Amino acid sequence: MHALIYRDGRMRVGEIDDPRPAAGQALVKTLACGICGSDLHFVHHAHHVVETSSRIGGGFPIDLGRDIVLGHEFCGEIVERGRGPNALAAGTRVCSIPFTHADGSGQSLGFSADRPGGYGQYMVLNERNLVPVPNGLSAEHAALTEPMAVGLHAVNRARLLPEDVALVIGCGPIGLAIIAALKIQGISDIVAADFSASRRRVAEAMGATLVVDPATVSPYASWAAVAYPQGYQPGSLDAFLKVGPQPRPSVIFECVGVPGMLQKVFEGALAGTRIVVVGVCMEPDRFEPLFPLNKENDVIFCFYYSGEEYARSLHNIAEGLIDVAPMTSRTVGLNEATDAFAALESGAEDIKIIVDPWK
Amino acid sequence: MHALIYRDGRMRVGEIDDPRPAAGQALVKTLACGICGSDLHFVHHAHHVVETSSRIGGGFPIDLGRDIVLGHEFCGEIVERGRGPNALAAGTRVCSIPFTHADGSGQSLGFSADRPGGYGQYMVLNERNLVPVPNGLSAEHAALTEPMAVGLHAVNRARLLPEDVALVIGCGPIGLAIIAALKIQGISDIVAADFSASRRRVAEAMGATLVVDPATVSPYASWAAVAYPQGYQPGSLDAFLKVGPQPRPSVIFECVGVPGMLQKVFEGALAGTRIVVVGVCMEPDRFEPLFPLNKENDVIFCFYYSGEEYARSLHNIAEGLIDVAPMTSRTVGLNEATDAFAALESGAEDIKIIVDPWK
Repeated sequence: MHALIYRDGRMRVGEIDDPRPAAGQALVKTLACGICGSDLHFVHHAHHVVETSSRIGGGFPIDLGRDIVLGHEFCGEIVERGRGPNALAAGTRVCSIPFTHADGSGQSLGFSADRPGGYGQYMVLNERNLVPVPNGLSAEHAALTEPMAVGLHAVNRARLLPEDVALVIGCGPIGLAIIAALKIQGISDIVAADFSASRRRVAEAMGATLVVDPATVSPYASWAAVAYPQGYQPGSLDAFLKVGPQPRPSVIFECVGVPGMLQKVFEGALAGTRIVVVGVCMEPDRFEPLFPLNKENDVIFCFYYSGEEYARSLHNIAEGLIDVAPMTSRTVGLNEATDAFAALESGAEDIKIIVDPWK
Repeated sequence: MHALIYRDGRMRVGEIDDPRPAAGQALVKTLACGICGSDLHFVHHAHHVVETSSRIGGGFPIDLGRDIVLGHEFCGEIVERGRGPNALAAGTRVCSIPFTHADGSGQSLGFSADRPGGYGQYMVLNERNLVPVPNGLSAEHAALTEPMAVGLHAVNRARLLPEDVALVIGCGPIGLAIIAALKIQGISDIVAADFSASRRRVAEAMGATLVVDPATVSPYASWAAVAYPQGYQPGSLDAFLKVGPQPRPSVIFECVGVPGMLQKVFEGALAGTRIVVVGVCMEPDRFEPLFPLNKENDVIFCFYYSGEEYARSLHNIAEGLIDVAPMTSRTVGLNEATDAFAALESGAEDIKIIVDPWK
């Protein structure tokens, strides 16, 4: 099959063996696959990713001496009906979490030399993970299920209260997914910050109630003014002694993931703010513990999502609860994918670019 | 009155004006005051504490150009009956949170040039904060209420599950308070780690079910073997996909508070472990975000406690639910207090030394 192949720090379009389904697996023709920030990172820092994952005991033991087909935000179509009693018919459009269960342990798809991801024309998926795409939803939009699941999971982990005032730092795909999930949960005050005007526009379209350009206004002060209308007053003894005006419960979603960002969040947080870290900072980071200590913050780190959250996200898109159209700028073929990677890295106007390996 | 006076980085015993109660306040004769690690720190790093607190917006605006009487773990005796309808009689033995409410904001006692703490012969306390000491409990043991409240608050913030496997890193007074609170909550597996053999002995006496010397055995491996009897397997994809044997829910209490400690905790944590940070690391710290991200840890920072937790802690001591006797090594007078500070800093056998300003 044709595929975008990663090897030795470079990407090229080439031929690779079609993957072959084993028992309990389906051969799926890839229709669409979104480019994720972690794909961009992997291309430049694969050795660091693999080495760190190994130190953590994580799920990404990747043989970098072989061809790798990335892509984990995908939608496809079943090529051949499976043999199980609940097998889906050929031609059924499906999504799946980008993981397989084999040999008693979970393995990733799209970060693996053994299991090609969505930048190839075919994938092999576990039948138990397949979710049919309802309502004639387009493959491009269904491919957004994965980042939407990341956002939904982050919101589910935030232990939201109905009166929470939310701040979303960074309006890339994950920040936008969080805004959409917050809106569905009925959160009435969603402050969102991004340097990009186009991303701020999309944030507003997806449910942000106040958007802020950090180049001109402090996102933290804007958000705190909503949480604490009596005046901006960061965490202190008063919150714990319940002296004076108390802020509304508050939550910050950190969706940037660069060193120094978390310390800024700690400086801007209020007493008792829950801080949900979704941005993936790959390098060591530095912070001053006295800030979160003094404010008694909870820091909730998020990385995965459950199969239920994944299926719920597809439902949310297909039922129109989330309109992902403003996020998806364009669809490219394999030959244009490398340029699309570069465009996303340059931080220009694109938010999510979809790869169609058959285009 | 006689008091241990801090000024310009030095401690000396001297005379200072008796504090005078205002409306709603009681004059209290100090009977006992425990020496806390934060007192030791303040003596050497007062300017850093004040400057950092100011940056955080915290509750410690301290005038370092004046005499300061430290001490916030105290028990005293009411000198004169107050005027309110619920005022306690003279001679009543009382404890109090080391905070006052005045002018619409909370202020600390024992870290203040205006409100002398428990290393002076008299204190002025807010009547609404006074808690009578029941059951003829000794003042030395009642003075342990404050560190016990810190531990109880940390345990209350940990969102414990009945089947949690707990690890307590560091068995100073706060680690021991946490062990005691975990035992009261019915947690059946409490692993505790400290380099000091005497502290490990006290940890066992207070409820630890397994004590570990980190010089010879990894506390994390010992704890994980309880949480994950199928074999030590740190966080990975499997926990999120629910593939293979799942660990019991788990929680780590970090009670050391030195740079680098949190990263060690992140390395040792399991997938989903809640990490409660109670150790007060005063310096900037460094960590690798990929560890808590990949394991989806919650990091719960603790600093204060509520009035209810304080009163509950006094109850726990007075009713014999916590035996603080193994923690309190000796009681000294003001003239011996400076030597006691030095003994605690040397990390010798003492755990908690009590100052009696009338001795």
